[in-house]
Amino acid sequence: MKVHRGSWKSIGIIHSPHGHAAGVPIQPFKGRRVRGTVEVDPKFAPALKDLDGFERIWLLYWFHRSRRPNALVKPYMDTTERGLFATRAPSRYNNVGMSPVRLLGVKGNILEVEDMDILDGTPLLDIKPYIQAFDSYPGVRQGWVDGINVDSSEGIADDRFSKD
Amino acid sequence: MKVHRGSWKSIGIIHSPHGHAAGVPIQPFKGRRVRGTVEVDPKFAPALKDLDGFERIWLLYWFHRSRRPNALVKPYMDTTERGLFATRAPSRYNNVGMSPVRLLGVKGNILEVEDMDILDGTPLLDIKPYIQAFDSYPGVRQGWVDGINVDSSEGIADDRFSKD
Repeated sequence: MKVHRGSWKSIGIIHSPHGHAAGVPIQPFKGRRVRGTVEVDPKFAPALKDLDGFERIWLLYWFHRSRRPNALVKPYMDTTERGLFATRAPSRYNNVGMSPVRLLGVKGNILEVEDMDILDGTPLLDIKPYIQAFDSYPGVRQGWVDGINVDSSEGIADDRFSKD
Repeated sequence: MKVHRGSWKSIGIIHSPHGHAAGVPIQPFKGRRVRGTVEVDPKFAPALKDLDGFERIWLLYWFHRSRRPNALVKPYMDTTERGLFATRAPSRYNNVGMSPVRLLGVKGNILEVEDMDILDGTPLLDIKPYIQAFDSYPGVRQGWVDGINVDSSEGIADDRFSKD
């Protein structure tokens, strides 16, 4: 199979209170009310037009402090090893992370956001608006996760996927 | 601002009936019942364990045939120019695409999927399970999109963002 290669370049930096992997909420819904900011490179600020109308936005970023991935991982919410692609573990073959954070406001090139589950200093790759018709699929069947009470399950990371 | 750089390497190839940008559904929900396959590099097949329990999965991929981005774009669903980050246009500063497709089955390293809105031959970056508690935010405020009837709006791409 042909392998394609390419490069990415950060378009900004994510600032959060989470300095180390241990202690980070594992998803925005586990980090409710945690605030952070997204500092977009000023040269991309014109592309932020109209963003402030959206209550929620996808941040796409690079997990810059993750270990090399394993094919099988024990996810935070479970005690059984699962296939990496059936988990949201932050050690991936390509370390792209995605978080649907709440957008509180836009001031120039700075976004104020809430529900922050991202490490401080993380390189930002992209911002996309959260659009219900595109992104929201309630009630879908979801494998091993259906056997778990997600609300009461472990919601805080340790250092199992981190280089530090 | 410090710019971070890195590289990606495809972990598979997405196969679809969409050979050219013009005619591609703009999102999975506009491409309902369109089938495709995801050919995962066999060396990553062990990481597919447990994936078959999920009804929907995120495909993350690289828009490999998009033009250079503009800060302002006219999205398919609207006639007004919007900030790029307030749209889902496929020409981005980092060309990462994400599609929540329906998973029909897994056979070895091949995924059969439905609701395919991705160009044939697209390099695959990652697969993540769709998890309702993490990803589904119905009823959020959504800026310019709230003024549009998404179901009846334009759902098929032309070549405005494509190199071909």
